Amino acid sequence: MRNIKLTIEYDGKRYLGWQRLGDSDNTIQGKIEGVLSQMTGETIEIIGSGRTDAGAHAKGQVANFKTMSPLDLAKMREFLNRYLPKDIVIKEVEEASERFHARYNGTGKQYSYYVWNHAVPSAFERNYSFHYPQKLDKEKMDEACRKLIGTHDFLGFSSLKKTKKSTVRIIKELSIEQTGSLLHFRFVGNGFLYNMVRIITGTIIEIGAGKLPLEVIDQVLETKIRQQAGETVPSHGLFLDEVYYRE
Amino acid sequence: MRNIKLTIEYDGKRYLGWQRLGDSDNTIQGKIEGVLSQMTGETIEIIGSGRTDAGAHAKGQVANFKTMSPLDLAKMREFLNRYLPKDIVIKEVEEASERFHARYNGTGKQYSYYVWNHAVPSAFERNYSFHYPQKLDKEKMDEACRKLIGTHDFLGFSSLKKTKKSTVRIIKELSIEQTGSLLHFRFVGNGFLYNMVRIITGTIIEIGAGKLPLEVIDQVLETKIRQQAGETVPSHGLFLDEVYYRE
Repeated sequence: MRNIKLTIEYDGKRYLGWQRLGDSDNTIQGKIEGVLSQMTGETIEIIGSGRTDAGAHAKGQVANFKTMSPLDLAKMREFLNRYLPKDIVIKEVEEASERFHARYNGTGKQYSYYVWNHAVPSAFERNYSFHYPQKLDKEKMDEACRKLIGTHDFLGFSSLKKTKKSTVRIIKELSIEQTGSLLHFRFVGNGFLYNMVRIITGTIIEIGAGKLPLEVIDQVLETKIRQQAGETVPSHGLFLDEVYYRE
Repeated sequence: MRNIKLTIEYDGKRYLGWQRLGDSDNTIQGKIEGVLSQMTGETIEIIGSGRTDAGAHAKGQVANFKTMSPLDLAKMREFLNRYLPKDIVIKEVEEASERFHARYNGTGKQYSYYVWNHAVPSAFERNYSFHYPQKLDKEKMDEACRKLIGTHDFLGFSSLKKTKKSTVRIIKELSIEQTGSLLHFRFVGNGFLYNMVRIITGTIIEIGAGKLPLEVIDQVLETKIRQQAGETVPSHGLFLDEVYYRE
């Protein structure tokens, strides 16, 4: 049995998110499984590194699947990109070891969130960033980032109910790069809780706008109360950039 | 009578181009005139700096219109951006002198053309660049650019029939900047003939791919025969960046 690893890019605007919900539905997983099943003549199930939200994008989602198909890798990629919708692109198709598992073997991820911070919206960024017209204090937001880096219980910055599983995660990098009116929030960590990137970004923005004090970060890390953090920013500014695996 | 200058950004994908073709049709001009007429209660006609093709984009199209409306400029911009479709954005609204004419007063323009030069297409660049998978020789293309800079009769690089009007234009800058797989062709000139940017780009690409010799540039400038140049690349990679006016 071969184990094939896919690296996938998608514009999530038209989709209900990564995870298949029913048969041949409007999800990224569903679309890819449909074409793979057609290609191999088998019923293929793919394992993604994790879900992405409805409307969110990916530049480097990773998935794997098992198959008996003898097709070579270049042919697979060609077939997939020919029959998938144009907003889902298979960037790489690789042979993986039998034990490779796209979810369990992941050691971390990079996400980006984009904010268009200008009084006037952008015709081009509108589907790929959150439009926030008010002035933001970049230095205060940078301070907020620094407070979040490290090992913390991020339960208060997630949409999870209290859970028995650990909600401790490590944020290794968190920075904001400004290019003109576009703010690029970059998150690197060993794992992210449900809605964690979107709630942290929303909280940092409200700190930058002066609607929340800087101390709210320490407070939410301490109390773990979701309601004290900022709003969840919309999914269309969110990108899964890369999934990390041990060599 | 006030004379108002607009600076306009649009994602041209859904539109039949700039120029109004009939009443309230699917053109950029038609959409903007519709909202302006609604805003002022007058029948507004706008004068654009020039047409853009169906599917082509703009980051800095300029237009002007005359009105008796006393509305202040910020309110106008707000009204326009509220009622226009989200893929047309009014970036600036300014008071212009009575004699300002967006077409006749233009002294030059900058256009960009984007090429996605990678074996695999891009889910994000697909609507904003031309996908050209074959390898391109950047140095040869740079040489082709240098040959085109200057004052030339560009008739052979246009879709015009022979005309009595001058087809001599000045290309002041023509360069290709590469960022990863994205090639950015940048054109600055005193004016551009119909399809000139798209035909020049198509010719340079065919030179880069080794399908046409470098000498074809001199030949087409000399013979002015359109058929000797390269193909017209598609409109969805084309952006009108800026229109220049004397101070």
